[in-house]
Amino acid sequence: MRVAILGATGAVGRTMLQVLEERGFPADEVQPLASARSAGTTLRWRGRDWTVRMPGPGAFLGCELALFSAGAARSREWGPRAAAEGALVVDNSSAWRMDPAVPLVVPEVNGAALRERPLGIIANPNCATIQLVLPLAALHQAAGLTRVLVTTFQSVSGAGHRGETALDAELAGGHSPDTPFPGPIAGNVIPWIGPRGADGWNEEERKVREETRKILELPELRVAATCVRVPVRVGHSIAATVELARPLAPAAARAALQAWPGISAPDTGADPLPRDVAGTDLVQIGHLRADPDDPRVLHLWIVADNLRKGAATNAVQIAERLVEPAGGRP
Amino acid sequence: MRVAILGATGAVGRTMLQVLEERGFPADEVQPLASARSAGTTLRWRGRDWTVRMPGPGAFLGCELALFSAGAARSREWGPRAAAEGALVVDNSSAWRMDPAVPLVVPEVNGAALRERPLGIIANPNCATIQLVLPLAALHQAAGLTRVLVTTFQSVSGAGHRGETALDAELAGGHSPDTPFPGPIAGNVIPWIGPRGADGWNEEERKVREETRKILELPELRVAATCVRVPVRVGHSIAATVELARPLAPAAARAALQAWPGISAPDTGADPLPRDVAGTDLVQIGHLRADPDDPRVLHLWIVADNLRKGAATNAVQIAERLVEPAGGRP
Repeated sequence: MRVAILGATGAVGRTMLQVLEERGFPADEVQPLASARSAGTTLRWRGRDWTVRMPGPGAFLGCELALFSAGAARSREWGPRAAAEGALVVDNSSAWRMDPAVPLVVPEVNGAALRERPLGIIANPNCATIQLVLPLAALHQAAGLTRVLVTTFQSVSGAGHRGETALDAELAGGHSPDTPFPGPIAGNVIPWIGPRGADGWNEEERKVREETRKILELPELRVAATCVRVPVRVGHSIAATVELARPLAPAAARAALQAWPGISAPDTGADPLPRDVAGTDLVQIGHLRADPDDPRVLHLWIVADNLRKGAATNAVQIAERLVEPAGGRP
Repeated sequence: MRVAILGATGAVGRTMLQVLEERGFPADEVQPLASARSAGTTLRWRGRDWTVRMPGPGAFLGCELALFSAGAARSREWGPRAAAEGALVVDNSSAWRMDPAVPLVVPEVNGAALRERPLGIIANPNCATIQLVLPLAALHQAAGLTRVLVTTFQSVSGAGHRGETALDAELAGGHSPDTPFPGPIAGNVIPWIGPRGADGWNEEERKVREETRKILELPELRVAATCVRVPVRVGHSIAATVELARPLAPAAARAALQAWPGISAPDTGADPLPRDVAGTDLVQIGHLRADPDDPRVLHLWIVADNLRKGAATNAVQIAERLVEPAGGRP
């Protein structure tokens, strides 16, 4: 099996190659694809060097799978072409996520949605949304979700290599002219991720709302997010308030979370911190407590590695389901 | 007039001296007081050096006012003694805040509460609470508050010099053995400020709830906070969700905020960031928007300098009211 990786030299693309190798994904070959700037360089995978090429006609022929993480514009351009050349596309950009013909999947939550993929394209959700929907699904099953309010603390790697470069430059006393942030990020926090709409909501906040509703299949769910960039290298954190249809004590909530695949919610009293979860694949929960005024409301802290579970690992988990014998290829 | 400053060498104490000088406070002399470690050193104020002493019997005699910022234990010890020696005490610690006989005051919100001070002690609220209650008061007047949900992004200077030293040491690649934080703070965010109770709530979160209710004189108000330390030097930020009794459009909310003393809420589209507000005295509001599901719910971003408006400036503003001719001394 041959797997193409579009955007292979980016922060998520490199992590995809790493996760494919770590998990023993049943591929024999990879085809790294990237822009002209990287074409001709090589990437290491399973002890071999693989030459990076630019995507072009025929680039996906012979590839059963294509993992994309090169931005929405390239996904719109190359998604249908890769599918036409026979590759199943797992796309990490926002290009296809809200298309009704494209499943938007977190395998532990709505893996069954992978069965219907008429375009041959599957979307990987927004990084903050992935780590949010796992505990939401567990709590919904336990007591019925009615409303979700979140504030995110999103690491600079969520903005790719440029984000990490900007933080490094500022910590060294300089400034990156190519920064993706609207102000200094070192020693700062910035409530602006993505362009702001006329209604005052930022694109990232809109994604968290819309994608959460789609993945959970709760199209009317009340969801509001405030998305904030923080000077953390890797690891997104979320402070969440969850309103439920029925009362749910913290101990019962913790049991429901612990029983859900992909979640770690130990009762240690120590909260997961982004610096500790970087490099891991579980969504980690802490600071779980009951609202002082309403037993149907819980507050919790949700941390995950945004490059791994928030992007590459989730995409590879989707790919694993697609190639499972039971999953059935089209 | 002579003013004693207990904890004069701390982060807030030094800022108190600076703010007294900047605002032309009508004092002729200051008496800096601190622990044995600092006694005998001098502090500059109005072009003169003032010798730091340790507090002891008689230390407050001849002082009309005493501003305290030396922690709750010292405030409990020295508050009643300073009052007995004739000084009106403005205390920045948590020691007296919830005492029914002690007014807890943000002058722009409940300055009238200063009239009744049977112990001769007035409490300065928690730093995050001060910047929160200004916009809450404005929105309450406009449409009636019913519920407040906040997530804070609190700077290391909120933990005093030790907090700043810990961040500096870590940014330099080291570690401060005296760190007040339960984990590394550089490149991290930590949802733990103050000891955690058996119910899972941290002390800072409890303070925000209880003090907000007391200052706004809304003892039943639903308030829930998640308080998080972030690697910012000075400047606390708050993401707030405010539920109101009546619908309030963002434009009307902004007008109410702009009309309130002590608030800046310009309609520029650019949000206030903690690095920009450090050194200023206004509470700055941005990212104001209507909830997508309920016109009685607003979301906003609130930033202020935690050492100034969140501590020293608010204490000096209280002191100004106390010495105003119309305020009347007891």
